[in-house]
Amino acid sequence: MAYNELYQYSVVSALMQGLGDYGLPYKELVSHGDHGLGTFRRMDGEMIALDGDVYQMKADGSIIKIDTSGGSDIAPFAQLTRFQASATADVEFKDKQGFSDALSKLLPKTKNHFVAFRVDGLFKCVAVRTAGGQFCRHESIRVLHKRQTTYEFTNVRGSVIGFRSPEFLQGVGVAGDHLHFISDERDRGGHVLEVECHPDVPVKLSASVQTKVHLEFPDDDDYQEVDLNPDSSLIKVVEG
Amino acid sequence: MAYNELYQYSVVSALMQGLGDYGLPYKELVSHGDHGLGTFRRMDGEMIALDGDVYQMKADGSIIKIDTSGGSDIAPFAQLTRFQASATADVEFKDKQGFSDALSKLLPKTKNHFVAFRVDGLFKCVAVRTAGGQFCRHESIRVLHKRQTTYEFTNVRGSVIGFRSPEFLQGVGVAGDHLHFISDERDRGGHVLEVECHPDVPVKLSASVQTKVHLEFPDDDDYQEVDLNPDSSLIKVVEG
Repeated sequence: MAYNELYQYSVVSALMQGLGDYGLPYKELVSHGDHGLGTFRRMDGEMIALDGDVYQMKADGSIIKIDTSGGSDIAPFAQLTRFQASATADVEFKDKQGFSDALSKLLPKTKNHFVAFRVDGLFKCVAVRTAGGQFCRHESIRVLHKRQTTYEFTNVRGSVIGFRSPEFLQGVGVAGDHLHFISDERDRGGHVLEVECHPDVPVKLSASVQTKVHLEFPDDDDYQEVDLNPDSSLIKVVEG
Repeated sequence: MAYNELYQYSVVSALMQGLGDYGLPYKELVSHGDHGLGTFRRMDGEMIALDGDVYQMKADGSIIKIDTSGGSDIAPFAQLTRFQASATADVEFKDKQGFSDALSKLLPKTKNHFVAFRVDGLFKCVAVRTAGGQFCRHESIRVLHKRQTTYEFTNVRGSVIGFRSPEFLQGVGVAGDHLHFISDERDRGGHVLEVECHPDVPVKLSASVQTKVHLEFPDDDDYQEVDLNPDSSLIKVVEG
């Protein structure tokens, strides 16, 4: 795929409905990009892809590098791109909102577009959660959300990878900014709940607009029958 | 593009907001498919593409074959596919709802998918409207809708081309079935308001699910700034 075209498998609202049993094999997924995020069968952990490597960040704190040449791992949901920054800046921020403001300043007038981004550097604090996986088929994401594990990493070097999705596509993606983190040592990470820089220690923000979006819809029984009317409030609670 | 992958330029909710000045040149558009529908600069008429030919069906009743090798025509919105039927049936229906029922019977369990379809044959009646074009830049689609032209064709041979879009993507496409018509003689056509078969004279319905959808978002000033929160009721009135 060309640079900066977004590939997405399934939609976030299907995930919200607990559809975690089927998905795209990671072997196939990585042909669509080297940078992105997603999840695994039965939402067992958080996925991050950077520089072509794919990691599973699990609720017990362990991190597994995925064998994308084979293996049986699947993604019920994923967003990937072949990332090439169109703009970069050294930035500092005190929280996620500060990050979003920095991204909006770097790439203004993108409210109706998808944006891919990456932040590299030393962070004062990164708070993450990792989904613990469904015990039962179709288990509600509300239940899953209640027993997620959270971690706080302080003074950690690493990378944040993510996407901004337009408000009017809430349910297709996560409206607003969706961030996953992994440490340089590849030993800590998860879905970012909060992130903070050290004062006067900027991190490197890179980003690019994705005007071409390739959506692939599942075609299994679960997807065919699920009710996908978006519940925006649930997405905000779980993925915000 | 491979068969039965949907290519879409812009989103219907941008059209609803009156964005008609910019778009994709038809020369480029036709590389994405041979079957589809859309509109023209400032919503000047209805577009239908079938068997690789593209027609502009204007409010004055005239029909123009578009030169897709060059020309200055652009599409502010379009949906195209390289159509190859995965299912066909001889069907009869008394109205648009009857058509939708026939399509749901032919391809069940597709409520969360895009479906491309085509109906060929002799129709007892086809009622169409054709948009008359914006007089002013950004003129509201509500105003445009009030001065559209409607025509009723009786005992007419022709083709209906269209797409079914999932309910949860209202605003991206037109949720439900969206139909354009052109006669075999290529002298009558428009956006289908109602359609009826002769009793005991079946027409041929062909359809295919489109699980891969390629969305291209405009990147002009108008699109960057427009409010795209979907107004589902307006889309139903104007495009339903």
